[in-house]
Amino acid sequence: MSGQSTTPAGSGGLSRRAVLGGAGAGLAVGAAGGAWGGRASAQAPAAAGPGLGAARVPFHGARQGGITEPAQARVEWAAFDLLASTGRDGLAALLRGWSAAAARMAAGEPAAEGENQIALDAGPSSLTVTFGFGAGLFDKAGLADRRPAALAALPAFPGDALDPARSDGDLWVQVGADDALVAVHALRVLLRLATGLAAPRWLMSGFARTPGATPHPMTGRNLMGQVDGTNNPRPSDPDFEAAVFATGPDWMAGGSYAVLRRIRMLLEGWDTLPLDKQERIIGRRKSDGAPLSGGPGAVERTPVDLAATDPDGVLRIAPDAHVRVAAAASNGGAAMLRRGFSFHDGLLPDGSPDAGLLFAAYQADPARGFVPVQQRLARGDGLSRYLRHEASALFAVPPGAPAGGYVGQQLLEG
Amino acid sequence: MSGQSTTPAGSGGLSRRAVLGGAGAGLAVGAAGGAWGGRASAQAPAAAGPGLGAARVPFHGARQGGITEPAQARVEWAAFDLLASTGRDGLAALLRGWSAAAARMAAGEPAAEGENQIALDAGPSSLTVTFGFGAGLFDKAGLADRRPAALAALPAFPGDALDPARSDGDLWVQVGADDALVAVHALRVLLRLATGLAAPRWLMSGFARTPGATPHPMTGRNLMGQVDGTNNPRPSDPDFEAAVFATGPDWMAGGSYAVLRRIRMLLEGWDTLPLDKQERIIGRRKSDGAPLSGGPGAVERTPVDLAATDPDGVLRIAPDAHVRVAAAASNGGAAMLRRGFSFHDGLLPDGSPDAGLLFAAYQADPARGFVPVQQRLARGDGLSRYLRHEASALFAVPPGAPAGGYVGQQLLEG
Ligand code: HEM
Ligand code: HEM
Repeated sequence: MSGQSTTPAGSGGLSRRAVLGGAGAGLAVGAAGGAWGGRASAQAPAAAGPGLGAARVPFHGARQGGITEPAQARVEWAAFDLLASTGRDGLAALLRGWSAAAARMAAGEPAAEGENQIALDAGPSSLTVTFGFGAGLFDKAGLADRRPAALAALPAFPGDALDPARSDGDLWVQVGADDALVAVHALRVLLRLATGLAAPRWLMSGFARTPGATPHPMTGRNLMGQVDGTNNPRPSDPDFEAAVFATGPDWMAGGSYAVLRRIRMLLEGWDTLPLDKQERIIGRRKSDGAPLSGGPGAVERTPVDLAATDPDGVLRIAPDAHVRVAAAASNGGAAMLRRGFSFHDGLLPDGSPDAGLLFAAYQADPARGFVPVQQRLARGDGLSRYLRHEASALFAVPPGAPAGGYVGQQLLEG
Repeated sequence: MSGQSTTPAGSGGLSRRAVLGGAGAGLAVGAAGGAWGGRASAQAPAAAGPGLGAARVPFHGARQGGITEPAQARVEWAAFDLLASTGRDGLAALLRGWSAAAARMAAGEPAAEGENQIALDAGPSSLTVTFGFGAGLFDKAGLADRRPAALAALPAFPGDALDPARSDGDLWVQVGADDALVAVHALRVLLRLATGLAAPRWLMSGFARTPGATPHPMTGRNLMGQVDGTNNPRPSDPDFEAAVFATGPDWMAGGSYAVLRRIRMLLEGWDTLPLDKQERIIGRRKSDGAPLSGGPGAVERTPVDLAATDPDGVLRIAPDAHVRVAAAASNGGAAMLRRGFSFHDGLLPDGSPDAGLLFAAYQADPARGFVPVQQRLARGDGLSRYLRHEASALFAVPPGAPAGGYVGQQLLEG
C-alpha cells in the first residue's frame, strides 16, 4: 500500500503547498494550491532531482501533512501513553511543543534555538509529522466528554493475532521523510519533547519507494510485489472529502481517523504460489496491476469490472479476489485512503521473514471504512491466508494547525 | 561513518564503472573508469535525478562492489552458518548461485528466469552485493589449510559487550541500494538461494543519506550528528591500495578484510553534553567537521594538526579526542577504509534508543588496521564512554568475479 504516486497530493483549496528551495526548484511536491489537481503523479515527479532534500511540506495548514502527500521513502511511527501526572495542561504543553518543533523541522530549520540538528546539511526532504489521539487519551486528560464516537474500539476480526504491546496508545506520531536521518532525527526530537509527559509505547519503521527509483512516476509495490494503491479514492472524486475527512465532532472537523495494522506477510508460502494463483488472489496482474477483468489490453487504470466473465461464464475476478472483497461496491460504499509502508525487521526465530505492510487507512469514520471491509476480508478474502494482523491501533487525526497554533488546540482549548 | 560523499568511488584501473541508463543519463556514479579520479563527491552528484533508479554498479570486476562505492541509502547485512551437510561442493554451488543472481540484479534484471521480481519498475538503484567468508567456513568446507592468517579471531577489547548471536558467521552478505525495496528484495532472493545450504545467523539493516538530500555532495553525518568519513584513506593516496586491499593468500589477492561492529550509541547521555564538549571529544567542529586544530577559518578538509596548541600551550586536539587516538599517526600508520551505516531499531526496554553505527572497516590486514586502533580507542578515547560495541564479526572479502565466474571461485576451485 505504498502507492507513492497515486496517493493524492495535497488538500484542495487549502494553504498547504509544497515549496522547493535551492537548486532544482520548479518541481512541486504535494498540492498545487487551490485545487486538488488530480493525481500526485502529475505534480510530484518520480525524480525530485536536486530538489529531493529541499522539498518542503509546510506543517501549518487546514489539514495535517502525511495523509494525502505521496508516501515518503522512510517512515517512523511512534505511539505514546500519557503519564498519569500529565493531565490536560501537560498534554496541551506537549502538543504545543511538538507542533512548534515539527513546523520548524518541516521548514528545514533546527527544531529549536540551539538544537544540534543531527541531519544538518540535508534539507527537510519532504518531512511530514502527523499527530493522532487514541481513545485512552480522553479520560487521562479529563476530556472524556469530548471523545468522538468514531474512536470506539475496533471489533475483533477473525484471524487477528494482535500483540497488545505493539497496539493502541494514547498518542500517535508519524514522521515521514525521503531521507532516513531526517526522519530518525525528527522522531528523536519528538521523543525527547515527550520526556516526563508521555512514555513511548511502541515504535515501527517502514519504507516506500525512493523518489527517482522508477523512470517515471508509478504506483508503488509492496513486499509481495504487487502494484498497490491503484484504486485509492482520488481527490478528484466527488465524494473524496466526505470519505476521508470527518465533519465532527467540532474539534475534529477536517480531521480524519487512522486505522493502523501491522500486517505480517507469510512470504515463504506466498512466494511458492505460481504467478496465476497470485494474480487470481488479488484480481490484478502482477506485472502492471491491470485488473483481470480487462483482458490482455487492460492497463493499471482500466476500471475493475466485477461482473465480467470469461466465455465459460466464470467470473474473471474471482469471488474471493482481494479487490472484489475489498471494493466499495461490495461493502455498501465503504471507502478509505490507504497510505501504508512496507516493513522488514529481519527474521523470526523460525527463520521466516518478519516483514509485511504497515497498513494505514484514513477515513471519515472507521465504522463506514475499515471495519466493514476488514470484516469481509478476514472471512472471505483469498489473500488473508497469507497475512497475519499482528498489531492494531485507531487514532483520531485532528485537523492541521494554523501558523501560531498547534495540533489539537481546538480540543484542548475549545 | 556513513561518509557517503567521501567514500572513494570505484576501483582504479579496474573495469568497474557505473552506468546510467534512461532519462537523466550523464551522471556517473562510482568510478570514473581508468583512474580513481579523487573523491566520489566529484563524480557522484548528491542528486542522481531521474537516474537514481537507473544507476548501475556492475557486479563483475576485479573487486567486489560495496567497498569503495558511496554508501547507499539502505543496507542489509546478513550472516549465515554453513550447514554441516553442505561441504565444499555445496558451498561452491551456493556461491555460484549467489553470484549469478547478484550480477543479474545489479544489472536491473530479474534474479533468474521467471523470478517474480518484487521491485519491478524500479531500476537497480546502485545495487551492490558483497560476499565475505568467516573463519568458521574453512573447516566446514574442508578448506582449513586455505584459511588466511588474517582471519584470526579479533582480540577482546576493553568495554566489549558482544552478543554472540549477533556476531560472527561463516558467510556474510551485504546488500546496498538507494531504494529500500530493491535492497530488501535482493536480500530475500539471496536468503532463498541459501535454503538447505546455509542458515541465516543474524540480519541487520542500516541507512546512509539518500542521494539528493543535500544541495551539494557532502560527507554524511552519523546519529550523533557528526560529519563522519572525512579522514578516510583516499584512492589518490599513494598507499591506498596497500592499506585497503590484500595481496594474499593467493585467492585473496585484491580482496579485503571487513571488520563489522554493531556500535550502539548512548545517545541520551551524548545529547545532554554541551556542544563544546561534544566537539572536544571528537576533535572536530560539529557544524562542518573542521578540525579544532585549524582555528576559525578551518574547513572540513583542513589537515588535522595533532601538535597544534593554543596560546596557553594546551593541545587544540585533546589527548583523548577520537581523531587523535584513531589517527594513523598514533597507531604506527594503521589505516582502514570506514564505510558504515546508521541503524535505528526502536527503543530498548529501558526506553533508550537502540540506535547507532553499523561500523564497517576494510583493510589489507586487520592486525595492521582495526585491531591496534580499537585497542587504543577502547582504552583512551573520550568517545568510548558513549558507545557500546554489541556485536562483532570479521570476514575475508574475496576479490570480484570476472564475467562468467563467481566470488570465491579461486578458493573453491583453486
Ligand atoms: C498486507 C495486506 C494487504 C495487501 C498486500 C493488499 C494488497 C492490495 C492490492 C495489491 C490491491 C490492488 C491495487 C489497489 O487498488 O490498491 C489492493 C486493493 C485494495 N485493498 Fe488491499 N491489501 C492488503 C490489506 C488490505 C486491508 C487490511 C484492507 C482494508 C481492510 C484493504 C483494502 C483494500 C481496498 C479497499 C482496495 C481497493 C479495492 C478496489 O476498490 O479495487 N487491503 N490491496
Ligand atoms: C559509533 C562509533 C564511532 C563514531 C561515532 C565515530 C566518529 C568519527 C568521527 C566523527 C570522525 C571524524 C571524521 C572522519 O575523519 O571520519 C572519526 C574519525 C575516525 N574514526 Fe571514528 N567513530 C566511531 C568508531 C570508530 C571505530 C570503532 C574506529 C576504529 C577502530 C574508528 C576509527 C576512526 C578513524 C581511523 C578516524 C580517522 C582519524 C583521522 O585520521 O583523522 N572510529 N570517527
